[in-house]
Amino acid sequence: MIKLVKIRPVFKFWLETDEGYVFGEGPFEILSKIQETGTLSGAVKVLKISYRQAWGMIKDIEKELGEPLLKTSKGGVSGGGGSELTEVSLALLDKYSKTKQVLAEFSKRITVDYF
Amino acid sequence: MIKLVKIRPVFKFWLETDEGYVFGEGPFEILSKIQETGTLSGAVKVLKISYRQAWGMIKDIEKELGEPLLKTSKGGVSGGGGSELTEVSLALLDKYSKTKQVLAEFSKRITVDYF
Repeated sequence: MIKLVKIRPVFKFWLETDEGYVFGEGPFEILSKIQETGTLSGAVKVLKISYRQAWGMIKDIEKELGEPLLKTSKGGVSGGGGSELTEVSLALLDKYSKTKQVLAEFSKRITVDYF
Repeated sequence: MIKLVKIRPVFKFWLETDEGYVFGEGPFEILSKIQETGTLSGAVKVLKISYRQAWGMIKDIEKELGEPLLKTSKGGVSGGGGSELTEVSLALLDKYSKTKQVLAEFSKRITVDYF
C-alpha cells in the first residue's frame, strides 16, 4: 500500500549568521547572473525580477555582512558601466553552489527506495 | 573580514508526495510522543500543543496517504484506552528520523571551516 505512494524527502538550505537568514536561492541566482551578464540590469532581465527587488536583496546581505557584494566599473572596452563580484560574493557563490551540489547528490541517493 | 563572520548552512527537509508536503517535524514529534506516552492526549501534553491541532495534522496525513496512522486500543492492562502506531506510521517515523540523522551529520561536516 504505502509502497505504491511516492513519498520522497525534499531538502532545502540557506546560509545564516547568528542573526538568521543571510543568503539563499534568490541572491544566488542574482549574483550568478551578474557574473554571467556583467550587469545587475542584465541579471534582472534574464531572471524576470524587478531591479528594485534584486537591489534590495543585495543591500540586505551587504548590511548583514558589513561587506560589499559588487564593485561597479565605469567605461571599459564596451564603453558601458558594469558590476563585478567582490571576493565576498565569489566566496558566497562558491560555498552555496558546492553545498547545493552535494545536497542534490545526497537527496538523490537517499530518495531511491525510500519506501 | 568575512572569515570573522560566522556563516553556516542551515538545512531543512520534509516528505512530499506528488501533491506536495505530507510529513515534517510537527507530525514527527507528535507520532514520536504517542509512541512514548501511548496516547494522543499524553503526546499533546508533553508537546504543549492543542489536541485539536495534533488531531488535524494526523487526519491531513491520513487523507493524503489513504492510510491510518493510529490504531486505538480500548481497555488493556491499565484499563484506559490508548493509541498505537500503525505500520505506516512506524515506516514514516523510521525514514524521517534516519534522514534527519544523516542530514545532521552532513550539516555538521559541511559547516566546519565554511569560510
